Amino acid sequence: MKLSTQPYKGARDFYPDKQAQRDYMFNTMRECVRRFGYEEYDAPLIEPIEIYQAKSGSEIVSEQTYSFIDRGGREVAIRPEMTPTVSRMVAAQRQQLAYPLRWFSIPNLWRYERPQRGRFREHWQLNVDLFGVASINAELELMLVADSIFKAFKADHTMYAYRINHRQLLDAMFETLLNLSKEQALKMAHLIDRRAKMDHSLFLDKIDEILTPKQKEAAVAETLLTLLDIKTIDQLPPQLKDSSAAKELSDLLQACKKSGILNVTFDISLVRGFDYYSGIVFELYDNNPENNRSMLGGGRYDGLVGLFGVEPLPTVGFGLGDATMTNFLEQHHLMPEFKSDVDIYIAPLNETVETATEVANQLRIKGLNVAVDYSGRKLGDQIKAAQKKMIQFVLIIGAREAEAKSYTLKNLETSTEEQCTIEQLVAKFSPKQE
Amino acid sequence: MKLSTQPYKGARDFYPDKQAQRDYMFNTMRECVRRFGYEEYDAPLIEPIEIYQAKSGSEIVSEQTYSFIDRGGREVAIRPEMTPTVSRMVAAQRQQLAYPLRWFSIPNLWRYERPQRGRFREHWQLNVDLFGVASINAELELMLVADSIFKAFKADHTMYAYRINHRQLLDAMFETLLNLSKEQALKMAHLIDRRAKMDHSLFLDKIDEILTPKQKEAAVAETLLTLLDIKTIDQLPPQLKDSSAAKELSDLLQACKKSGILNVTFDISLVRGFDYYSGIVFELYDNNPENNRSMLGGGRYDGLVGLFGVEPLPTVGFGLGDATMTNFLEQHHLMPEFKSDVDIYIAPLNETVETATEVANQLRIKGLNVAVDYSGRKLGDQIKAAQKKMIQFVLIIGAREAEAKSYTLKNLETSTEEQCTIEQLVAKFSPKQE
Repeated sequence: MKLSTQPYKGARDFYPDKQAQRDYMFNTMRECVRRFGYEEYDAPLIEPIEIYQAKSGSEIVSEQTYSFIDRGGREVAIRPEMTPTVSRMVAAQRQQLAYPLRWFSIPNLWRYERPQRGRFREHWQLNVDLFGVASINAELELMLVADSIFKAFKADHTMYAYRINHRQLLDAMFETLLNLSKEQALKMAHLIDRRAKMDHSLFLDKIDEILTPKQKEAAVAETLLTLLDIKTIDQLPPQLKDSSAAKELSDLLQACKKSGILNVTFDISLVRGFDYYSGIVFELYDNNPENNRSMLGGGRYDGLVGLFGVEPLPTVGFGLGDATMTNFLEQHHLMPEFKSDVDIYIAPLNETVETATEVANQLRIKGLNVAVDYSGRKLGDQIKAAQKKMIQFVLIIGAREAEAKSYTLKNLETSTEEQCTIEQLVAKFSPKQE
Repeated sequence: MKLSTQPYKGARDFYPDKQAQRDYMFNTMRECVRRFGYEEYDAPLIEPIEIYQAKSGSEIVSEQTYSFIDRGGREVAIRPEMTPTVSRMVAAQRQQLAYPLRWFSIPNLWRYERPQRGRFREHWQLNVDLFGVASINAELELMLVADSIFKAFKADHTMYAYRINHRQLLDAMFETLLNLSKEQALKMAHLIDRRAKMDHSLFLDKIDEILTPKQKEAAVAETLLTLLDIKTIDQLPPQLKDSSAAKELSDLLQACKKSGILNVTFDISLVRGFDYYSGIVFELYDNNPENNRSMLGGGRYDGLVGLFGVEPLPTVGFGLGDATMTNFLEQHHLMPEFKSDVDIYIAPLNETVETATEVANQLRIKGLNVAVDYSGRKLGDQIKAAQKKMIQFVLIIGAREAEAKSYTLKNLETSTEEQCTIEQLVAKFSPKQE
């Protein structure tokens, strides 16, 4: 039987060049969030299914989780998102932890979806969460954190923009203005969340499916469409404009401006798929029309930690996926080129393999990254291997060089050669900081 | 319903202090393997079950995998080990890749086992593989790589030792000396692999279960026990001693000595659980009697890449688990203490929150890690939070400090205070290299 060499459908193999891109992205993210005092955590890949059933949203749990029964009869899922897990961990040490608590993680997540551009069944996501701050200082900080990441990637404000909304504003719209029931409101929120992905006529049909005949008569759909067209907080009808939710949004918009985040707009149709959001929600979009989608989403979810039987905790968090981030960096020509981090590739000739190993070890002790070609092929083939690996320097060790303890260093970019002792090599490849 | 705060059975939550230990271990490993020219790769968590059925060994597949049917009807498993995956990836680009190929990864792996000390259902494992070298230079290099990792952890040769064996020596022992069938040989190998975990009398019973009545009469069990007592290659009976396998083992032992690895012994009872090994196998043990177990195992598996329908490739690899490594470092007092990497914790008083955010952002631009306490609590409580987070410096910003643009820096270790401007703070917390 011949086994397939393909990775699992919708998941990606990361060959070293792709892994180097991911390292660059994740290390940049780590550096940025640590600037704000965030600490990294991690957790098991598998959780009991209940923690998603509680609040993640029905589509995710019933249609998209990788769930199964383990050998001990437990119903479990490979995590589709990290928020329930981090809430569980905080709840487990609710009393011992010191607040404000700043945590981050870069887990892999699994969802059974149709693979498409920027969307895979397995993806990685930077998760940043701030626990214990009830004021909009929390939302502002997280937006600053995300902004600092994009700046670190050398992106500017013409390339991306924030949209913000407030769950309580949506609730007030559905319940006070449109008189929808709780259940109708939830359905309507999920529908609006998927609005961009469907035809306008289908969207109208779906609205009608949710409404009662009486509501249809009362032109609820028309009122909703008018509301969805609102572009600023000032345009909101008085019942919404005077709410504490609208006040929080205004305050946050102002605080953003003061902190230099000018690319923020209010978007009343912004929902976010998760049922656990309880306050301000935000998303960050790529402005490039080729890739015009949400790259980062988050918001306030004050109720989730409390579901684990402890005192509730005000919380704001966001997630930033690796696939959309990669698309963004490539689209805007911000992804750096991959270079080998091997300093020297040693090509031993004939009987000098033992010397090659010795020389390599002496250079490694001094902090150089050195690979030895043990293939026994002729020199030309060894040099070709180094070129394919994008290594710039080859150290040739023949019998003559081994005896003289001075080796031929060939620069593959300039095609020049020089003789070097170990000391000269160490001096040339300036010692790394460690 | 109250949700449980416990992690999935046999898996671990990594709170920031534990995550910092893991970072230390993984970053040290990465640095060491890169010194030898290895490049990092990664792959999907899920694979089709066939790639394990082919060669991993029956116990792993039938009793220990986390396998399930996905929503598309595919039979899949969460990877119990990385070797089949890396072989698949190399096979997929068999012609394009340049050999010798040096790859590493630190994946999480899942096995359904009874959790016990140093053994979890989820663990991480450094996987280091060298493709394309048929000579024992490959085995020697991998043993040098592992040795360099232990040295980097400040361990010395009194703390751990290598044991080596050769699959073909085992095969010759089973087939030539003991006249076992292929099937009996496989069973016997698995039994010897589990020998240390069972009573001697049970071990003898299990041998008898494998043997035919005729073999029992021929005292095959007694011959086996005598063979298992052999401690050096010189003591082997002539049929084994003159084999190419014994020659390779002798050569490797000699090469190890020349390269400074003196803590290696030949161990004829060393099997390694995987069916894919084809040549030399090796393990690295903790010498501490409290933790006397294998920490690292590997060997040659020349046939695995070829199972994916491409030309076979000589390959040697090893795996090093995080749980046994953690035990080793703790047992030998080699695990460093966790320190916060937050340079300054800002405690704003009353109306100075906005100033605090501004000051924090100015310090962050200069490369300092700064967290702000947005809780609104009184100063004493903010300082207690910093202490709990093991942060050494608190910057107090009251109305007076905000106006003077000079802030009170409190050193929590020495309980001293000084006034600092932003410039002075930047100078004090020496800029990091970037």
